[in-house]
Amino acid sequence: MDRAYKVYSIDNGTVIDHIPTPLALKVVEILGIGNEGIFTIGVGFQSKSLPEGKDIVKIENRILLESETDTIALIAPRATINIICNGKVSEKRKISVPETIRGVMTCPNPNCATNNLGAEKHFTLEDPSQVVYRCRYCERVTEVKPENLTAP
Amino acid sequence: MDRAYKVYSIDNGTVIDHIPTPLALKVVEILGIGNEGIFTIGVGFQSKSLPEGKDIVKIENRILLESETDTIALIAPRATINIICNGKVSEKRKISVPETIRGVMTCPNPNCATNNLGAEKHFTLEDPSQVVYRCRYCERVTEVKPENLTAP
Repeated sequence: MDRAYKVYSIDNGTVIDHIPTPLALKVVEILGIGNEGIFTIGVGFQSKSLPEGKDIVKIENRILLESETDTIALIAPRATINIICNGKVSEKRKISVPETIRGVMTCPNPNCATNNLGAEKHFTLEDPSQVVYRCRYCERVTEVKPENLTAP
Repeated sequence: MDRAYKVYSIDNGTVIDHIPTPLALKVVEILGIGNEGIFTIGVGFQSKSLPEGKDIVKIENRILLESETDTIALIAPRATINIICNGKVSEKRKISVPETIRGVMTCPNPNCATNNLGAEKHFTLEDPSQVVYRCRYCERVTEVKPENLTAP
C-alpha cells in the first residue's frame, strides 16, 4: 500500500478512526446504522499505532450520541471519535465503556431469561479495568467479546 | 450530497458497483471477505440508475472468482463488476445467478436436514426468471431473499 488513506473526508457527521481491523463491520452492526443513511467503511488500512491494521467508519450527516460512541468502546476502546461540522473537527470525543449495556449484548448463560423468555438484555459494568459485565437477570458475569454483540 | 463518489479508486482488485442500498454489507457477508484484506464500502451514494441510492464495494489486490461474483447476482442482479489491474479496468464482468448455491443460503424448511443434521446447504436453480431455487435435500422451492443468505 502506498496510500495511507482511502476514504474521502466528510463535511458533516461522525468519523470513527483507529478501530482494530476487521472490527468496522461489527461497529456498524452494534450501532444499528447498517440499514440507513450514507456512510463509508475502510477495512485493513495501514496504521502506525495499530500494526495489524486499522478500520475507519465515516457516517455522513449524523452526530452519534455519547451513549452510541461509548458502545464502540466495548470492542474498540482506543478508537478515536471526531465530530465534523462544516468540514472541521468540532469535537474530539473521549469514549469509555458504558455503565450499562442494553440490547446489544447476549448473555452467555443459555438458561438466562434474556435468551429464553424475551426479557430485555441488560448488563451492568462489573469491572471497568477488564470490560466485564454482570447480567441483571441471571447475575452471570461475562467479559465482552465482539461475537457476543449484535445489532440493537 | 454534492459529490457523486466517496470511495477512492484502487490500483488492483475488484470493484462492485450499483448495489442497491443498503445491501453492500450483505454482499461482503456472502462473499466471506469481512475478516481479511483491505476493502472499502460506500453505502447510500447517489445514483441515476438507482433512485433509492447505491452501494459500492472495492476490494484491494483480489480478483474475485466468477463463482463469487455470480453469488452477488442473487441479491444485486444489476450490480456491475470491474476487475482493475494497474489502475485500469481489465475486465467488465457479466454476472448471472449461479446454477447451484452451496453454503450461503439457508433452507426455509425448519425440518430440512440442512437445518438440523448438519447436511451441506445445497440448492439448484429452478427458475432463473424469478431467482427461485430448489433445496437438494427436502425439495422445498424458495425465492432468494437477502435475509436467507449468510456468510459461507
